[in-house]
Amino acid sequence: MSTVRLLADADLSPEAAAVFADIRATRKTDFINNFWRALANDPPALRRTWESLKQVMGPGTLDPLTKELIYVAVSMANSCEYCIRSHSAAARSKGMSEAQFMELVSIVAMASETNRLAIALQVPVDEAFKPV
Amino acid sequence: MSTVRLLADADLSPEAAAVFADIRATRKTDFINNFWRALANDPPALRRTWESLKQVMGPGTLDPLTKELIYVAVSMANSCEYCIRSHSAAARSKGMSEAQFMELVSIVAMASETNRLAIALQVPVDEAFKPV
Amino acid sequence: MSTVRLLADADLSPEAAAVFADIRATRKTDFINNFWRALANDPPALRRTWESLKQVMGPGTLDPLTKELIYVAVSMANSCEYCIRSHSAAARSKGMSEAQFMELVSIVAMASETNRLAIALQVPVDEAFKPV
Amino acid sequence: MSTVRLLADADLSPEAAAVFADIRATRKTDFINNFWRALANDPPALRRTWESLKQVMGPGTLDPLTKELIYVAVSMANSCEYCIRSHSAAARSKGMSEAQFMELVSIVAMASETNRLAIALQVPVDEAFKPV
Amino acid sequence: MSTVRLLADADLSPEAAAVFADIRATRKTDFINNFWRALANDPPALRRTWESLKQVMGPGTLDPLTKELIYVAVSMANSCEYCIRSHSAAARSKGMSEAQFMELVSIVAMASETNRLAIALQVPVDEAFKPV
Amino acid sequence: MSTVRLLADADLSPEAAAVFADIRATRKTDFINNFWRALANDPPALRRTWESLKQVMGPGTLDPLTKELIYVAVSMANSCEYCIRSHSAAARSKGMSEAQFMELVSIVAMASETNRLAIALQVPVDEAFKPV
Repeated sequence: MSTVRLLADADLSPEAAAVFADIRATRKTDFINNFWRALANDPPALRRTWESLKQVMGPGTLDPLTKELIYVAVSMANSCEYCIRSHSAAARSKGMSEAQFMELVSIVAMASETNRLAIALQVPVDEAFKPV
Repeated sequence: MSTVRLLADADLSPEAAAVFADIRATRKTDFINNFWRALANDPPALRRTWESLKQVMGPGTLDPLTKELIYVAVSMANSCEYCIRSHSAAARSKGMSEAQFMELVSIVAMASETNRLAIALQVPVDEAFKPV
Repeated sequence: MSTVRLLADADLSPEAAAVFADIRATRKTDFINNFWRALANDPPALRRTWESLKQVMGPGTLDPLTKELIYVAVSMANSCEYCIRSHSAAARSKGMSEAQFMELVSIVAMASETNRLAIALQVPVDEAFKPV
Repeated sequence: MSTVRLLADADLSPEAAAVFADIRATRKTDFINNFWRALANDPPALRRTWESLKQVMGPGTLDPLTKELIYVAVSMANSCEYCIRSHSAAARSKGMSEAQFMELVSIVAMASETNRLAIALQVPVDEAFKPV
Repeated sequence: MSTVRLLADADLSPEAAAVFADIRATRKTDFINNFWRALANDPPALRRTWESLKQVMGPGTLDPLTKELIYVAVSMANSCEYCIRSHSAAARSKGMSEAQFMELVSIVAMASETNRLAIALQVPVDEAFKPV
Repeated sequence: MSTVRLLADADLSPEAAAVFADIRATRKTDFINNFWRALANDPPALRRTWESLKQVMGPGTLDPLTKELIYVAVSMANSCEYCIRSHSAAARSKGMSEAQFMELVSIVAMASETNRLAIALQVPVDEAFKPV
């Protein structure tokens, strides 16, 4: 019951089909999840989002699991069920244990609590935390 | 300009003073940041928050730097300036490089974008992402 | 499965019935959507909300479709499924094409990304953007 | 007091300098606002964000002013002061009047109110609003 | 440094002046806070917002202090500094003690934590909590 | 369809079982809602959250119903369906009438609207609202 049609492979424009081919090659699986099938209704948006995601989540200075954990944490903070479930699955495939998932959940919840305390009390930033 | 007074050491109740002593012993520094000085107006809340934070951010299955990165990410998602600055400082003290900080920022921003896409398009969760 | 009963026409108080009559006359349709049927449990809130909505979304300096697009965009930013779906329907009835809907989605997502970047980096407002 | 340095033109990497040159050419002005100077610390992020923004805000099925109004609306919903101010300036330069700005503000506020009502009352989506 | 001018009494349109007069009569004070001076740039929005606020915060089934506490709590959840400060002042004038303020802050923070836990764990609603 | 298993009594670790026993004794009912059954996958988190909740929602300077109303209000502001439903049930059991619920909803919605107005207009805090 998405707000747009989830496109099957047969429905794709050539531009969208090329992106799907790259997703499959990059992820080494034939499976394309619903997020991309919804976005395929706008091929330039599909390409832009996939290229950005590949760049942001690709090799860098943080390891792949840490990156996924951060992605899941933000998705929890933004209350996006689809994103929590899809990126939790990705994190599990990169080695996240159930104990690590529960620990992540505790940090997200604790941060939400102290974020709210700092905002409610309007705590001024300490000089020590300001950039030199 | 906090909504409550930032208590100096001389203003603390005995219960709050005991928590400050534990913060100093645990962190091996005399410095107490404003967050705790504001919360000290409610000693039970101060104790509860500190004990919880010590437990959540203490030894577990995720390494200390990963925990701080998750904390900073949630603080960015919640738009809490105080929390972004104080936990970025903590992450830097645990080894976060500037390149890692910028990479964290990119993940938080990218996740916020795809979270919004999944919500706007009301993408249904794939069967593959549902727990067995 | 709302938190209050969705009132049928037969259940309405006279004050709520009068508002429903005005909604029907204004919109030139007999259909009353669930939002108003839930709100009808509090007739003064029903009247106040309808009168405000009629005023805000009525003739002004922005054209009706632009107003609906803004409404949908805010509903996406606030993750309100009901509001995304009902105001997308309203926008379609005022002429929004599927291409415009996808373009709207891209703007909402892109803004969410750059909003998060500006907040994460705590970018100071340029003098050029300050009112004279 | 950003969390990273705002880079002056002399501090830019060649990749960042090339993006700044394209921003200047596209916008036909020498002025580069602080957002890009902060992002320039991560040249690939700078390039990706600018390329995406140029694509999303470029010619499409919605007119340029409508696009900016949507951008400002989302920035208000996300409480991003920097984004409210910079995109309001952009909207003004594309013809937004003060009356239109106030009307936009009313729609954003009204949508936030009814979004909250729909969520608080957990109003179920009407069949009429579901895609066929 | 608001995004619109804060209107002095001498700058008001007759419609805005009438609303200011009613605010002064209702609140039994000459003081008009900045919120209304900003909103006065759009007299119908000023009137609509004031009339709604007067109705919502006026006599009902909840006592005036409880209403203000709820208002402050929502303002904290929405991170609106202006609203936290102005409605805290209102709550104090209606009898809120400093201990009650700190207790309110703890509830807001705790609710933010458990909200996040319920969302992160996607806890299904118990049958017992569903309406009969 | 939670992201973790909802633990039955037979599945509990001794630490989690002890917390469940305390919940039952404190609430004087055998019923344990799903929130705790999900959290029981992480016994220290279960204990910490329950102990904090008991302290925050226990005797203090605000009466029990007012505390629940604040909790529900924050849950509505955070769009947490589980929390809206479970804490509404708790508020009803502490005496909240349907009229009070609808009044609460109006305040939450109205506060969300004026919060957004203050943020959109970037209204500066009045001197009168600053602490002395």
